Amino acid sequence: MDFHKPDGCGHPSSIDSVQPDFRKEVIRMMTLTADRLAALGATVNSVNLGSHQLPDGQDLPLPPVILGELGKDPQNPTVCFYGHVDVQPAKKEDGWKTDPYTLTEINGNLYGRGATDNKGPVLAWINAVETFRALKLVVNFKFVIEGMEEAGSLGLEKLLEEENQCFFSDVDYIVISDNLWLSNKKPALTYGSRGNACFSVEVECGDKDLHSGTFGGIIHEPMTDLIALLDSLVDPTGRIQIPGIYDSVTALTEEERKLYESIEFDLEEHKNNSGVKKFLYGTKEEILLHLWRYPSLSIHGIEGAFHEPGIKTVIPAKVIGKFSIRQVPHMDLLVVKRQVVEHLEGVFSKRNSPNKLKVSMPLGAKPWLADINDPLFKAARRAIKTVFGEDPDFIRDGSTVPVARMFQTITQKSVMMFPIGAADDGEHSQNEKISRHNYIEGTKVFAAFFLEISKLHRHLHKTSNMETNN
Amino acid sequence: MDFHKPDGCGHPSSIDSVQPDFRKEVIRMMTLTADRLAALGATVNSVNLGSHQLPDGQDLPLPPVILGELGKDPQNPTVCFYGHVDVQPAKKEDGWKTDPYTLTEINGNLYGRGATDNKGPVLAWINAVETFRALKLVVNFKFVIEGMEEAGSLGLEKLLEEENQCFFSDVDYIVISDNLWLSNKKPALTYGSRGNACFSVEVECGDKDLHSGTFGGIIHEPMTDLIALLDSLVDPTGRIQIPGIYDSVTALTEEERKLYESIEFDLEEHKNNSGVKKFLYGTKEEILLHLWRYPSLSIHGIEGAFHEPGIKTVIPAKVIGKFSIRQVPHMDLLVVKRQVVEHLEGVFSKRNSPNKLKVSMPLGAKPWLADINDPLFKAARRAIKTVFGEDPDFIRDGSTVPVARMFQTITQKSVMMFPIGAADDGEHSQNEKISRHNYIEGTKVFAAFFLEISKLHRHLHKTSNMETNN
Repeated sequence: MDFHKPDGCGHPSSIDSVQPDFRKEVIRMMTLTADRLAALGATVNSVNLGSHQLPDGQDLPLPPVILGELGKDPQNPTVCFYGHVDVQPAKKEDGWKTDPYTLTEINGNLYGRGATDNKGPVLAWINAVETFRALKLVVNFKFVIEGMEEAGSLGLEKLLEEENQCFFSDVDYIVISDNLWLSNKKPALTYGSRGNACFSVEVECGDKDLHSGTFGGIIHEPMTDLIALLDSLVDPTGRIQIPGIYDSVTALTEEERKLYESIEFDLEEHKNNSGVKKFLYGTKEEILLHLWRYPSLSIHGIEGAFHEPGIKTVIPAKVIGKFSIRQVPHMDLLVVKRQVVEHLEGVFSKRNSPNKLKVSMPLGAKPWLADINDPLFKAARRAIKTVFGEDPDFIRDGSTVPVARMFQTITQKSVMMFPIGAADDGEHSQNEKISRHNYIEGTKVFAAFFLEISKLHRHLHKTSNMETNN
Repeated sequence: MDFHKPDGCGHPSSIDSVQPDFRKEVIRMMTLTADRLAALGATVNSVNLGSHQLPDGQDLPLPPVILGELGKDPQNPTVCFYGHVDVQPAKKEDGWKTDPYTLTEINGNLYGRGATDNKGPVLAWINAVETFRALKLVVNFKFVIEGMEEAGSLGLEKLLEEENQCFFSDVDYIVISDNLWLSNKKPALTYGSRGNACFSVEVECGDKDLHSGTFGGIIHEPMTDLIALLDSLVDPTGRIQIPGIYDSVTALTEEERKLYESIEFDLEEHKNNSGVKKFLYGTKEEILLHLWRYPSLSIHGIEGAFHEPGIKTVIPAKVIGKFSIRQVPHMDLLVVKRQVVEHLEGVFSKRNSPNKLKVSMPLGAKPWLADINDPLFKAARRAIKTVFGEDPDFIRDGSTVPVARMFQTITQKSVMMFPIGAADDGEHSQNEKISRHNYIEGTKVFAAFFLEISKLHRHLHKTSNMETNN
């Protein structure tokens, strides 16, 4: 899972994993995966997505997306699993203790690029399906396996839209296992992520930069306007100052508050990881609430102004401030956009500046929120209790999870993120690993989940049949 | 004159005129100038300044500085002239109508690189000296001619300091003719320039940039702090908000106000040149006062934040705001620095931010102000009245004039800027020119000035002798 990429907001050229030289290796992995699914007895369709253009103009074929299908009994629930077999770049000399492309076990940990992100969980799922099928098949399986996740899942959205009425028509549940637990020991289920509304605020006085000696003191400088606009957005406590922005944020329920209390989360470790001396809040609950269920606003930078080391005494003619709001469920993107535009226009009009203001929202990614009382989550919770002997943490992600949101928005099915890796697995880092324990128990928990979902689904089905009969 | 370079604040590597390939041409010009002065009968000393290092590590010999001397009668005033014979780069294909290195007359204008900046005025001065000398020599002349002005006068300051007790000991007046009139028709004398105090404001939360999804909403973001600090500096009317900053700015005198009233300045044209729709002030007087005798503050940009096109949802860990104050005479640099630091620290402390703040002033260039009642200005004013039939405008420069300030600070002599080129000469631009009229009348006005300064000086000398005798 690509936690650290800018949620699809960046330039494709800046994403590390678009490495044309390795495209053949990705395609080899896709073939290997297709063979493996076929060996299970699945029908495998490798969908050609065409090609994409690199920044240098070169056309490069996209890896296919695998759509797999195993079982078609309408009595059974259909669980669709999403995973990816492409990985982040890795070189031994980056600081790996082992060859990143040879899975190596040291002290109970399996080291290798993709061990946890996402080849390990994909393989665990396939193994679980194989085992479960050897027993008795009461679940229909579908598979969506791609090879471009680390490069922004190019082409996937279009395919999902095209297949929504076909491949996805009989899918009941979608499971993604492409993230991590919040702690090293305690299993977790992920039920939501924040969105990302990215804004540009452009202030322009003319078409050329001006010398601060020749014009300083007699013009309304665009930077001064922009700084004032940006300064109106958020207060020192982190509270967003845009009127109405919190109106759609739901009040915290007692049920939710309880979920947060039981979560295993090392506040000190998170602080150490950040390098920051002090957080805005002092308790685990407040920190997680403000990361997951309350919006935040960050100012990222200014385009068009002087940004290099040293000094340049220029008055930039056109400056573009960039900020984003991590918005939460029930905050409508269009409403948020309107609130931001109205607020900034209001602040600007009070300045009596003759400069031109332009506010835009070049990207708006929606948040994702699942219902943890959905059979999908109930089944996973029971499976976790069986295998790990404890209830999972119900967690969210402060970042945007594009794939979960994409599946949910397009298919309108229940989506769950079901991680099996631990918080310290180091996805995207050197020495990425999954522990042998997590891998084996993860395989078991998937299998246990199949059993639970089939039971729950049969029960639901029976109930709904009884209701129909009444 | 280098109006548009960042007042010596920039990186030497970014200054266009450091073009090693043309260094030989500059040295050829220096030799030509030395020969020309020697032909006048002057003693010429070409001072070797050693070499300087280019950004690529290469050592390049600096052109010499010419120190010339003509006449040594202690009864006569000694006028030292500063000029430069290096030029800005120019290529025909940049949009020149004529070959930039062949002086070409079209409709009374002499086109060529250096025509007005600064070879034309240097030659006019030499011609005036030649003519004046042919009549009767009652002025001693000294010459400082350099070849690195467009590259920041490398080595000049050190030379002036070394020669202060020698070459400059008997100098009475220093004249620089390396700027332009404020209008196309009306002569001007320049008596001051603003300084430049450049500031850096650094806010840091840790040693690595953070993901806005993983940390947005729980930390004190350095950008939010920095934006608030920058927003506290200047209000929408351009007034600096730093307490005490205007304390040393002198009140406008009636004499000064009158000077501003008579100045010929095309407000509309200046506005058109800027590309700006509306200035902060509506009258010529207010505009010039705010450009020349009141301080201004410009925010130039932010280092360390996202500055590219597109979107990147990062929380930068260390951001450095850059701003500068064009300070005016009587504003002490150390006091300004203290006021800025205290103000920013005050604003920051109210935010209760755990981040680290560091304010520094990496460059402080002093303003320059001459006394227009000095004999130097009186003599030039009379000469202008004689040759052009009208009084000159007494003007200042909103930018820093490093050479004037340098001569004034080191030698403590009277310094005057005595332009002969018109506002539309296009120094540094394509199709730089000086009009035949300005060149010839400029030569005459220099000669008339020699006469006036010798008369005034003789009078002063007599008066002071009489006083001594009493």
